[in-house]
Amino acid sequence: MHTLWDERYALRTDNISSSAIRELLKLTSLPDVISFAGGLPAPEVFPIEKFKEAADVVLTEMGESALQYGTTEGYTPLREMIARNAAKYGIQISSDNVLITSGSQQALDLLGRIFINRGDRVLVESPTYLGAIQAWNAYGVKYVTIPFDDDGMRTDLLESRLRMGLKFIYVLPNFQNPTGVTLSRERRKQLVDMADAYGVPIVEDDPYGQLRYEGEHIPPVVVLDDEMRAKEVPVYSGNVIYTSTFSKILAPGLRLAWVVAPSEVIKKLVQAKQGCDLHTSTFTQYLAYQVANNPWMKTHICTIRKTYKERRDVMIKALEKYMPEGVNWTEPKGGLFLWVTLPKNLNTGDIFEAAVAARVAFVPGGPFHPQGGGENTMRLNFSNSKPELIMEGIKRLADVLKDHL
Amino acid sequence: MHTLWDERYALRTDNISSSAIRELLKLTSLPDVISFAGGLPAPEVFPIEKFKEAADVVLTEMGESALQYGTTEGYTPLREMIARNAAKYGIQISSDNVLITSGSQQALDLLGRIFINRGDRVLVESPTYLGAIQAWNAYGVKYVTIPFDDDGMRTDLLESRLRMGLKFIYVLPNFQNPTGVTLSRERRKQLVDMADAYGVPIVEDDPYGQLRYEGEHIPPVVVLDDEMRAKEVPVYSGNVIYTSTFSKILAPGLRLAWVVAPSEVIKKLVQAKQGCDLHTSTFTQYLAYQVANNPWMKTHICTIRKTYKERRDVMIKALEKYMPEGVNWTEPKGGLFLWVTLPKNLNTGDIFEAAVAARVAFVPGGPFHPQGGGENTMRLNFSNSKPELIMEGIKRLADVLKDHL
Repeated sequence: MHTLWDERYALRTDNISSSAIRELLKLTSLPDVISFAGGLPAPEVFPIEKFKEAADVVLTEMGESALQYGTTEGYTPLREMIARNAAKYGIQISSDNVLITSGSQQALDLLGRIFINRGDRVLVESPTYLGAIQAWNAYGVKYVTIPFDDDGMRTDLLESRLRMGLKFIYVLPNFQNPTGVTLSRERRKQLVDMADAYGVPIVEDDPYGQLRYEGEHIPPVVVLDDEMRAKEVPVYSGNVIYTSTFSKILAPGLRLAWVVAPSEVIKKLVQAKQGCDLHTSTFTQYLAYQVANNPWMKTHICTIRKTYKERRDVMIKALEKYMPEGVNWTEPKGGLFLWVTLPKNLNTGDIFEAAVAARVAFVPGGPFHPQGGGENTMRLNFSNSKPELIMEGIKRLADVLKDHL
Repeated sequence: MHTLWDERYALRTDNISSSAIRELLKLTSLPDVISFAGGLPAPEVFPIEKFKEAADVVLTEMGESALQYGTTEGYTPLREMIARNAAKYGIQISSDNVLITSGSQQALDLLGRIFINRGDRVLVESPTYLGAIQAWNAYGVKYVTIPFDDDGMRTDLLESRLRMGLKFIYVLPNFQNPTGVTLSRERRKQLVDMADAYGVPIVEDDPYGQLRYEGEHIPPVVVLDDEMRAKEVPVYSGNVIYTSTFSKILAPGLRLAWVVAPSEVIKKLVQAKQGCDLHTSTFTQYLAYQVANNPWMKTHICTIRKTYKERRDVMIKALEKYMPEGVNWTEPKGGLFLWVTLPKNLNTGDIFEAAVAARVAFVPGGPFHPQGGGENTMRLNFSNSKPELIMEGIKRLADVLKDHL
């Protein structure tokens, strides 16, 4: 018999955490399963025709450079476009403050790489984004958690955490993954003030900021931080590292995201990225620039908002109609997800199998809590299923839950 | 004044090494500089028309899945194609043995991540590939080096290194970067046998295997290793992890490479990759499959070979014509690079500036030696410059060297 490499060569396991969720999600792609489990955009809104035109322009007019090696920092026109867009939101940066990454996941990994020494403490919301947990586990992070309510992270509990000594604070202020909850303007301000007072940087992850379906825009944390600073130097030098992505406004298959940060942080991230993948695909960067640097983009984002708003509304209507007493959910004002809480005695991990048998899937909430808890919660995605399927899926899920109540 | 983040937040530096070379290469893109410094393919051989057709087919026929999230392992048809191609070289694998990575650089990073604990020893040729050094420095590796001659790594010196305890052996058997030298068949066999006897795995990096311009094909190390094994199990279970790339046969701007390994190693790499970038761009994978899974590919590779062979020949002719006595170079049978050795008293790092002033660039050899040495060496790339520029560039370089002799 051959021995497995794991035994033969002592492959490392301490710096790798498999996502139980991703293994589980494989089940949800079975035929006839209505899946609220993924985090997928609706493919119907992908601007396929625009990509076709863009591919033709890019390959015809600049094929040789679009297919060649590029710089680690990313395609300059794309970085400049991101800097210009940031100015619209009220923050003055240049392309020196922008790094293109291979999806937000890489941004999280690189931030882990430049910040986290084994044993360092990072503050995360509980529940928080699974991808961040997976990225930073590799660097031996210790999580400090902070609970949430309808206004997001409980900033009234922040100071006790800051006193513990934190490497950084990770926050998803808009329509958080997984809860769908938005951090209020007041709390953003508190967060910024206290982080500054304690000299702890903030990592602001904002994949869904442009996907607001109702209510007023709240400035990103990075803007509130910047506003507070006296401008002694004419460059961005705030306390916040901001990251966002093209995955939800263009297409996730491009694997394109970006980081906005002080230039010395960008330099460190660039050095780290060189060792990880040299640079992000030149071709997809050229494509994204061609598609996104166009007034049409505004209309496109409106289309996405309209599509997802309808789906969110249908899901909430279905929950109201079908769910038994004792089941609660958040009502997100944007984004892709909502969060369901069952009575305390129920465990969504146990219910998952019965749900898949009934041809409906969700993500159990437990794994989103890096320090445990949340066994009675689940995440539902509303962006990827058509309205009629959402109605039927929630009905199926409600029937399964009734069996367990 | 604002303090820089480096000081304020103690960003890590121990796991990041900036590539001095990449900084230096910025100089070489100045106008009129004939650069032999990069490692760039000739853009003239990029199959731009094929990419145009492929983009149209992919977006028209499968746009929704090509732009959506994909699996971490990679696009199944692409992995199956790679497995089929491997069979032609004499090794039976399935798509379970294939992982798609975001360029070879990511393959090296992920291998570092699953193998290297701080202080682990890895054997590399001296000089060796800079990207590997950069990737593995992040994991606190200790390098053990082995010198080369015209037949590649000096396997007669291997046993003394193996006795030191190695995590793995890294080898570029074909037209090595930076030297252009090829490991002989006899030495490949010795390497395989001794690594097996000592229970040390081999990482075989083969970006240029298909770019041989003369002489007979030598089986990859992974094939020689596989041949040796009694097939007790009908799955690939050898001692070699093999990696190659589409960068040199299609286009580097795609950032597409792959790893072939026992399935349990692939599983570990997949877990590591999940945390790093979730998956490689679905769109570029679909494109590469569309372009490469075609009999035309054979003709295309012949075109590349013909183009690069001519450039290599011109460079060697120019070296013979212009170089002063005491300057020696390798005569690679394939690949993109050759290696120049000057008299011992010369330092190519010192000469670099004078060369750029004379409008010609190379890469000083020092940094390719992880334990120092090689100050009198340089790497020259012959794939990226047109023949007439190669002639002129070598003439300029020879004039600079004459000034320093």
